[in-house]
Amino acid sequence: MITLTTDFGTRDWFVGTMKGVIAGLAPEARLIDLTHEVPPGDIRGGAFALAAAAPFFGAGTIHVAVVDPGVGSRRRAIAIRSKEAVFVGPDNGVLSWALRDAQVEETRSLDNREWFLDPVSRTFHGRDIFAPVAARLAAGALFAEAGDPTDEYVRLPWPPVHRRENGLSGEILYVDRFGNAITNLPAAKLAPEALANGEVHLRCGALHIPLCRCYADAPVGSPVAVAGSGGLLELAINGGDFATHHGLAEGTPVEARW
Amino acid sequence: MITLTTDFGTRDWFVGTMKGVIAGLAPEARLIDLTHEVPPGDIRGGAFALAAAAPFFGAGTIHVAVVDPGVGSRRRAIAIRSKEAVFVGPDNGVLSWALRDAQVEETRSLDNREWFLDPVSRTFHGRDIFAPVAARLAAGALFAEAGDPTDEYVRLPWPPVHRRENGLSGEILYVDRFGNAITNLPAAKLAPEALANGEVHLRCGALHIPLCRCYADAPVGSPVAVAGSGGLLELAINGGDFATHHGLAEGTPVEARW
Amino acid sequence: MITLTTDFGTRDWFVGTMKGVIAGLAPEARLIDLTHEVPPGDIRGGAFALAAAAPFFGAGTIHVAVVDPGVGSRRRAIAIRSKEAVFVGPDNGVLSWALRDAQVEETRSLDNREWFLDPVSRTFHGRDIFAPVAARLAAGALFAEAGDPTDEYVRLPWPPVHRRENGLSGEILYVDRFGNAITNLPAAKLAPEALANGEVHLRCGALHIPLCRCYADAPVGSPVAVAGSGGLLELAINGGDFATHHGLAEGTPVEARW
Repeated sequence: MITLTTDFGTRDWFVGTMKGVIAGLAPEARLIDLTHEVPPGDIRGGAFALAAAAPFFGAGTIHVAVVDPGVGSRRRAIAIRSKEAVFVGPDNGVLSWALRDAQVEETRSLDNREWFLDPVSRTFHGRDIFAPVAARLAAGALFAEAGDPTDEYVRLPWPPVHRRENGLSGEILYVDRFGNAITNLPAAKLAPEALANGEVHLRCGALHIPLCRCYADAPVGSPVAVAGSGGLLELAINGGDFATHHGLAEGTPVEARW
Repeated sequence: MITLTTDFGTRDWFVGTMKGVIAGLAPEARLIDLTHEVPPGDIRGGAFALAAAAPFFGAGTIHVAVVDPGVGSRRRAIAIRSKEAVFVGPDNGVLSWALRDAQVEETRSLDNREWFLDPVSRTFHGRDIFAPVAARLAAGALFAEAGDPTDEYVRLPWPPVHRRENGLSGEILYVDRFGNAITNLPAAKLAPEALANGEVHLRCGALHIPLCRCYADAPVGSPVAVAGSGGLLELAINGGDFATHHGLAEGTPVEARW
Repeated sequence: MITLTTDFGTRDWFVGTMKGVIAGLAPEARLIDLTHEVPPGDIRGGAFALAAAAPFFGAGTIHVAVVDPGVGSRRRAIAIRSKEAVFVGPDNGVLSWALRDAQVEETRSLDNREWFLDPVSRTFHGRDIFAPVAARLAAGALFAEAGDPTDEYVRLPWPPVHRRENGLSGEILYVDRFGNAITNLPAAKLAPEALANGEVHLRCGALHIPLCRCYADAPVGSPVAVAGSGGLLELAINGGDFATHHGLAEGTPVEARW
């Protein structure tokens, strides 16, 4: 099983070409698209999508993530093996959020040019490096032959959550297709009694939004906060687009209060 | 074989995550996307897409449709088995148009929590309920174990077609990616002689548009009516976007006259 | 292995329906999407995408391309077999650029109605003709039974490249999702010494843009020319959208100079 996460879009032939390369080298590998609509060059967006999806794939899955504004420059290409999965991509942080809680077992710099397509272009390492490396690993090649071992990989900082008196402060981390604004505030860090009593609300600028159990607990058209499917608090409008309506984007400060 | 129809878009990781859950529980199941670009919350749009595609899939296909603005509320989750296929989704009507002409054999309320992911979120039943239920059915679990039997499911009303003297009246039901406006007027209900003699035209507001055999029968840039691929009359512009050009949307009245 | 290239978009059920038809007739066939976001009716765009991706698929792959503004009219449907692959689609040129350097072995007009769905609509030959023909070929049917042999197929002209004193002139051929403008100028036709010495630049209107090795060789926000992944020179902005920023589209003249 190989998953693909890129900012290549589906308008061109880029993703299909990667799949052709993989199918040629690993005919038995199953391919699943996580998303190819990461905004161009948005490493954080790609990192968040991969981190959200990876826990729902079985052991041994190979996750390929290519959001790679530095393609062709000196940035490294890496493969990281954890207890659960293998991650392949540019060493720019796009893999790192999926590994925040993982036990990393081995990291390799992708130096083995015999594993690449020949020639390697300067602009499309998804096709020429990452697809063939993932395919060879899926087909049973030894992880250790991918390249030299390395101890380090680029880790994107996860925006910090601060505990307040009767509250938490953080920020909007990701806006999804529905316009729901996912924050970095974990539902598990709310005071359980306040949660049970329905006394939690979220503040974002001048907005005070009650925490409900589901979107439909608020009237249609009204703002609502919920514990999202990844365990993080999110801000939404029942039947609407919260982020567009309020002009809010990633990085906007948010507080949970009780 | 499992098909997926949602309003999740492909911008985020939602669909990929559903596929990871399915692949884990039913590794042999083949997955086909119908569409994930149903407009957010547009139950009718999802119902129409599923109804248009389902007849072209083989017996025993499991169709999962998740357009689910009420996710996490008291709306039921259901599975419906017809002679041809199994349909899994929220009980809000999104499954119902695909079943308009079907012989329903069994309907179950999805109550068997052992089939769900644990825990079940309040915001992503596609991942936590519908994907695992479909996967278990694909892997051979008994339909009867999905939950309690039920006689009812929510049926979206199909907009009525009225016979007129020398005509039919109805409405625009769906606008597709090309801007073609698909109506609820069945080509099979036109007078055969009028059809054979090329005497049928469609009226929509001030527009009078002749019924042709194919888009290219009209000059490029001109409006044209045709019998579409699902047997319904549709309005188009050869080489253009009818619905945007004329500012028409679902629900606009249309008449066929001869 | 069957690839699909269309202008059907992923908003509706069109592509999913084609896949249902193929899966019914060729359950073992593997399906890979090249793209379904060819702009509606843009035969050149579809031809370019198919030509860019096809070389990365194994021998015997069946490529289906449906960009078909003339659907239902008298335009022919064809299948072309080269040494490497089989190409199936409308005979309007969409297949032709993938065959520019290929050795064509056999071409058939798709006349064998027994291979089609019954009935054949006038508006959706992707579903009714091209999908079942590709599926039957994938399932082992004889190429010669697809229809009558023919010597001709429609070839889109490839825009000419002119040699100048110390230069090449051509045009923008395709703008990709990142806004990179791919030209018809082959990197292999540049003077090797000028290339080695970094003395090549591209001119497009008033713009003079140095040829670099990769996008990241230019400062973020600056224009850059590179040899793209298909061997053609392209114009880009490091971290930006070249074509939108400069208002340039397919057909704009471009020169390489040294």
